[in-house]
Amino acid sequence: MLQSELFTKTKREAPKDEEAINARLLIRAGFVDKLMAGVYTFLPLGLRVLKKIENIVREEMDKAGGQEILMPALQPKENWEVTGRWKSFDALFKLKTRSGADYALGPTHEETIYPLLKHYVSSYKDLPTYLYQIQTKFRDEPRVKSGLLRSREFRMKDLYSFHTDDKDRDKYYETMKGVYFNVFKRIKLDVIKTEASGGTFSQRSHEFQVISEAGEDVIYICKRCQIAVNEEIIEEQNVCPQCGNDNLEKEKAIEVGNIFPLKEKYARDFRLTFKDKNSKESLVSVGCYGLGTSRLMGAIVEVYHDEKGIIWPEPVAPFAVHLINLSDKQQATSNKLYNTLQKTLQKAGIEVLYDDRESASVGEKFAEADLIGIPYRLVVSEKTGNKIEIKRRDEKKVKLVSEKELIRLLKLT
Amino acid sequence: MLQSELFTKTKREAPKDEEAINARLLIRAGFVDKLMAGVYTFLPLGLRVLKKIENIVREEMDKAGGQEILMPALQPKENWEVTGRWKSFDALFKLKTRSGADYALGPTHEETIYPLLKHYVSSYKDLPTYLYQIQTKFRDEPRVKSGLLRSREFRMKDLYSFHTDDKDRDKYYETMKGVYFNVFKRIKLDVIKTEASGGTFSQRSHEFQVISEAGEDVIYICKRCQIAVNEEIIEEQNVCPQCGNDNLEKEKAIEVGNIFPLKEKYARDFRLTFKDKNSKESLVSVGCYGLGTSRLMGAIVEVYHDEKGIIWPEPVAPFAVHLINLSDKQQATSNKLYNTLQKTLQKAGIEVLYDDRESASVGEKFAEADLIGIPYRLVVSEKTGNKIEIKRRDEKKVKLVSEKELIRLLKLT
Repeated sequence: MLQSELFTKTKREAPKDEEAINARLLIRAGFVDKLMAGVYTFLPLGLRVLKKIENIVREEMDKAGGQEILMPALQPKENWEVTGRWKSFDALFKLKTRSGADYALGPTHEETIYPLLKHYVSSYKDLPTYLYQIQTKFRDEPRVKSGLLRSREFRMKDLYSFHTDDKDRDKYYETMKGVYFNVFKRIKLDVIKTEASGGTFSQRSHEFQVISEAGEDVIYICKRCQIAVNEEIIEEQNVCPQCGNDNLEKEKAIEVGNIFPLKEKYARDFRLTFKDKNSKESLVSVGCYGLGTSRLMGAIVEVYHDEKGIIWPEPVAPFAVHLINLSDKQQATSNKLYNTLQKTLQKAGIEVLYDDRESASVGEKFAEADLIGIPYRLVVSEKTGNKIEIKRRDEKKVKLVSEKELIRLLKLT
Repeated sequence: MLQSELFTKTKREAPKDEEAINARLLIRAGFVDKLMAGVYTFLPLGLRVLKKIENIVREEMDKAGGQEILMPALQPKENWEVTGRWKSFDALFKLKTRSGADYALGPTHEETIYPLLKHYVSSYKDLPTYLYQIQTKFRDEPRVKSGLLRSREFRMKDLYSFHTDDKDRDKYYETMKGVYFNVFKRIKLDVIKTEASGGTFSQRSHEFQVISEAGEDVIYICKRCQIAVNEEIIEEQNVCPQCGNDNLEKEKAIEVGNIFPLKEKYARDFRLTFKDKNSKESLVSVGCYGLGTSRLMGAIVEVYHDEKGIIWPEPVAPFAVHLINLSDKQQATSNKLYNTLQKTLQKAGIEVLYDDRESASVGEKFAEADLIGIPYRLVVSEKTGNKIEIKRRDEKKVKLVSEKELIRLLKLT
């Protein structure tokens, strides 16, 4: 893409009321725009990152047998009364139609998916089944000072698994832990599995936490096992649940995902049952698995940045390569290189942002490139002659390479 | 995909309170599930169709220079007061945060995109620019009896174009008419361009109408020009605006898209201005271009169905091919064929749904295939031997072909 055609521009200053590093950098670099507290527009660069994260999540959910659906945000009050959460769910946005019907604006989808499953599940033959969506959710958060880490409108993947019994559900629950780590590995995020109490859901659940000063959670890590417990658990037990280590380290962390064994909880409320081989009716055992995709984007920025800007990991970078031309005299050369890269790299899925602007200075172009944080920076200037300067965003050293070497190098990444 | 793994099943009956053909067929065939009046879940088959429509729309918007963004559904009351629509927009859903802030739930996005553009547009050099999103929108519709044709929560593409002057905007407005017909051609929908008054927006606008008994609009068509005027216009002029023909035919129609020259209307409200070469400040001239992607899905079903079910046009079909095995004895043969098709056709983007179920009868399998409406039905049975029976959903004749012929044939489609 030509940078001259991108409608966003970088900004020297972030909004004064924005404290979080992720929001400040994402706004300054033109990835998101703040509409109001806790509510952001995803701009072209930001939407590219979000889609890459969500596609990785989608691929991993599909591999785990998930079937993708898209549930509504508008949900009838009646369903929320069935679970008792119309009153108890503090962050629930409520609205009324002109004719007086009450709706909830979905912060989670148990109240929708159980009634849906009742339309399709009646026999043990219909189970297990795994459904997920990647969708926009809404929560009336009282405090929204953490940018994409806590928004009133946010993107989330939620998967629900339906089973004939707890044993089968426990097995899938374990599978899903592995699936989550596949996602985190692909997006290059170090995540710590954390034991948590079930909250409204069940006795024990798991959170996936990224250690960060920006985090709103506190966790206690066992460095031996690389697992952790959250604050609620630490009050019950002061040791690592795996090895008994009592020397746990306290850290601030960002909760990017959580998984719950819902067991028969809402199945009982909605009478979601199935008949076994002997026509005996039982409640369906359910697990639910959340992953905040826009929060992941914020967490990545909190982990991957320096004083100059963002440092995107390659799998989620808006572009893999940032080609910068610094010389009017070399415009034709760099245009040609851009076209060559487009042709040779597109098939390999390697995308190029080309800073073709004549108006910006050398200093501005470098500063903006560092702020935007694309993994590979290529420079064409009077000094580079018929070679190209290549530099990784996360390294200091530059290297002069021929076009042929460059293409070989980029294809290896 | 294996049909045995699909969690949805077809239904003999549609919900009693659902009158619209599109909703009845889509629910019976397992494409959507009704959560409440005017609010639907997209099930795996339905989400596949929706994504195909939206990807075609996305490709055409990208070709027209559109940059994709994703704006929030939650919008501050203040912005809606700027345009005066907090009070005048009847179908606006309103909600309150715990701390008492008022939000609108976006039925359209002028109130968000103008403030956004103010962050990025200041000079004539920043124009023109074309931004779009494909997003979930909300309207408090009083009547929702038309299935996906009129929902309280729906999917829509909206593009906004920003220009230095009306002339440039008019030019893009004409371009966009062509772009819309590229979309309609690709999704195989006959659409009639219809002159409309601007409503709240401007003097004259255009609607894109699909003739259908299910339509809630009435249009007057000039058969010579294949254009139409809507009811409001017919009261002003009784003739074709292009050729003066006064023999116009009255038809019911589904409005699938509409485009408006907003001109300086909201630019004035939000003070969206730019400086020209002489530093003279002027208002930005804007056009907006809506296209209902979930409504298109409903319109396609209204146009393409028979008494047995849906007849999906190939570009938007959930799968291109429906392979059906009718014989336990041929299970190995049909499994092998499925694997071969997956391998040889996947690269060509031709997807296969394989009815591998042992439980369903021959009659049920045929009836369900007709209801679901996948373009090509392949049958393996005891009768077909080492050949395969192929039938198009929109034709009656069947044909026996070898595996080699079959693959050649499908690749041609």
